[in-house]
Amino acid sequence: MRKVGVAILGLGVVGGGTARILINRKQAIKEEYGVDIDITAVLDRIPERVTNLGLDLNILASSIDEITQNPNVDIVVECMGGTEPARTFLVKSLEAGKSIVTSNKEMFAKFWPELEAAAQKTGAGLYYEATTGGGMPIIRTMTTAMQANNILEIKAIINGTTNYILTRMTEENADYSEVLKDAQALGYAEANPVADVEGYDSSYKLSILSSLAFNKRLPVDLIYREGITKITAEDIAIGKELGYIVKLLAIAKQKNGKIEARVHPVFLPKSHPLASVSNSFNAVFVVGDAVGDIMIYGRGAGDLPTGSAIVSDIVYCARQVEHARYSEMFNNMTEEELIKDFESEYYVRLTVHDVPGVLADVTTVLKNNKISVSQIRQNKNSEIVPIIFVTQKTHENAMNKAIEEISKLQNIIKVENVIRVEQ
Amino acid sequence: MRKVGVAILGLGVVGGGTARILINRKQAIKEEYGVDIDITAVLDRIPERVTNLGLDLNILASSIDEITQNPNVDIVVECMGGTEPARTFLVKSLEAGKSIVTSNKEMFAKFWPELEAAAQKTGAGLYYEATTGGGMPIIRTMTTAMQANNILEIKAIINGTTNYILTRMTEENADYSEVLKDAQALGYAEANPVADVEGYDSSYKLSILSSLAFNKRLPVDLIYREGITKITAEDIAIGKELGYIVKLLAIAKQKNGKIEARVHPVFLPKSHPLASVSNSFNAVFVVGDAVGDIMIYGRGAGDLPTGSAIVSDIVYCARQVEHARYSEMFNNMTEEELIKDFESEYYVRLTVHDVPGVLADVTTVLKNNKISVSQIRQNKNSEIVPIIFVTQKTHENAMNKAIEEISKLQNIIKVENVIRVEQ
Repeated sequence: MRKVGVAILGLGVVGGGTARILINRKQAIKEEYGVDIDITAVLDRIPERVTNLGLDLNILASSIDEITQNPNVDIVVECMGGTEPARTFLVKSLEAGKSIVTSNKEMFAKFWPELEAAAQKTGAGLYYEATTGGGMPIIRTMTTAMQANNILEIKAIINGTTNYILTRMTEENADYSEVLKDAQALGYAEANPVADVEGYDSSYKLSILSSLAFNKRLPVDLIYREGITKITAEDIAIGKELGYIVKLLAIAKQKNGKIEARVHPVFLPKSHPLASVSNSFNAVFVVGDAVGDIMIYGRGAGDLPTGSAIVSDIVYCARQVEHARYSEMFNNMTEEELIKDFESEYYVRLTVHDVPGVLADVTTVLKNNKISVSQIRQNKNSEIVPIIFVTQKTHENAMNKAIEEISKLQNIIKVENVIRVEQ
Repeated sequence: MRKVGVAILGLGVVGGGTARILINRKQAIKEEYGVDIDITAVLDRIPERVTNLGLDLNILASSIDEITQNPNVDIVVECMGGTEPARTFLVKSLEAGKSIVTSNKEMFAKFWPELEAAAQKTGAGLYYEATTGGGMPIIRTMTTAMQANNILEIKAIINGTTNYILTRMTEENADYSEVLKDAQALGYAEANPVADVEGYDSSYKLSILSSLAFNKRLPVDLIYREGITKITAEDIAIGKELGYIVKLLAIAKQKNGKIEARVHPVFLPKSHPLASVSNSFNAVFVVGDAVGDIMIYGRGAGDLPTGSAIVSDIVYCARQVEHARYSEMFNNMTEEELIKDFESEYYVRLTVHDVPGVLADVTTVLKNNKISVSQIRQNKNSEIVPIIFVTQKTHENAMNKAIEEISKLQNIIKVENVIRVEQ
């Protein structure tokens, strides 16, 4: 029986969940997977967190060096969050030959090449299932179940906070700000919600997924990013009438060897498998050239779901004789390899003065920019009226130019919103 | 670079798809996964199938022994279908130390212990992702991504033919027999559709999934099985009104160490993640005690999707230094460990003479059998009327007894249908 010692850095929500699973499932994992796992070290400022788990206070380390020098530690599990000192601690661990398991998406997305380099020097393993989608096994799927495929497309709901907010806005016909307040009160959103609602969190995860899918590292700052704060109850209501559900999607596509990568709100047709992913659930939809459409769905956060992903990585790591290497992580994608002027359909909502000719002016701008319209609506019930139209597939640059021109037309009061439509 | 030789038994739809992927992805798999895979042997009656793939006719073997004795064959891939000679060929291969990859669900579900025993003798690997759900990576998920979990429940749509038929019946408000005919004409259903429509195919796959989930082999014949042939357009239409979608589900649950396992049509609430799995798509919904709900969705059949699962197994197998062993496959579950009198909610549709007291008679029978009703409908527009009711959770035996008694009541013309309701 292989004996495996685990050090946990940070016994907070996720670290604590991981420890509880390791303790409760110890016997079952021994029997089913042939590895005998013990928690042999912990790094945390609060000693009670160790004793509350029924663990011996002796395993509490006073520094990372004590852990990297401990011969009874085989795997270092990082549940601290934040880029520092997590990054430094993990590099030290890898350099000492310890395999690492992390759930730290921001740190991992930004410093993957440095971690991979440190791992390759000593042959240690690098596991990060919990960085992306909590308990949802998307990393294992991409690394061990899609080898037959050239991956063409990823569409993902990988931020539970925004999906929760958008679901409630949709169900309650409520505006962003009131739902956000409630989500914060209920613990679904942070006091400072920027990382979630502005799409940063999704872009870290998309960087990781996209790098794996296309075998070349996609730096976070090359990802186009737009948050959900401009979505209104009115857009959601009109979207419903048109058959759409609003979601914050992380999208990456491969076209002729070039990549497009973007995080922004979209309208999805109600029949799309991602459209019914509600509340704080996450899902990743992947298209491979052999397998076609695959979707993985699950809880994107929480102590036990994320702990499940971490423990899965620990058991998987413990059983590997030789760890998988991703040398392509050193080849950063360049701006030249990126499709910036991507294609999409667009939903546009305008407020206009209801005078003769305004519709003709708008459609003329679209025509001049070679943009075809698939549907258009104008409600006539007062002097100030909405015009809503949805375009056929067109380029982002052409659309931006057309919107700029429309906003300057004489009887246009406001371009209220532009939301991309994905099929 | 590890060099790996693959023998393919049967170059039909799935074997041909597998070969095409191996040929087209050879270079990419070398670069990304560090294994150099060649097709070094084929067993098939039609030589053109070999040459049409651009392969050398020299690799066509004349017998299984030629393959098991070929030192250039490391992995034997079986795409023949049928239990014999597939089973004998695979046992021979394993005894010769060749790892095997199979997509043959019926054979695998019935003879897993024999194959596992042969594999353990020589240390060869045994891979079967493609037996269950085509390209959908449910086996890899259960074996390498849920180790932290005590699995509580599986609900699966794992037969594309029946899901296609039920989807079309739902969309077109059409009856079973007409949709079946069309599905046969289009190639979605076999000329003899029994294995699919009577739930045998689903029960093979549920046997495999359930054995993995609960760490004890569930023999196929212990699974309760009921097909879709009794589902009518009328039931589907009434189900819609009640907020339900009809699906053929394979269900396994663990309760206090006992297992229930059953394949039958169910009504699912429209909001359930499985309800929107349409046409020939498959999906497996798994509940683990740590991770909560997970769902995997994908194409359950077809040359390339199934080929994708097989090639994934080949690459995964080729990279393993030591193959996972499942000794628990020898411990067959006994009838005593099985929950036969399982619990469910039930939808019941009766036709009755519209005379005073008939509703009271029905509800009295239910009350005497301690069955609570969550909703009941009786339409009054002729002398012969329907009564529709949905029960709260009750035991199968109590329900069967109540239905038996109801069918004998004076003014009951017919118990038209009974469909279980899952939440």
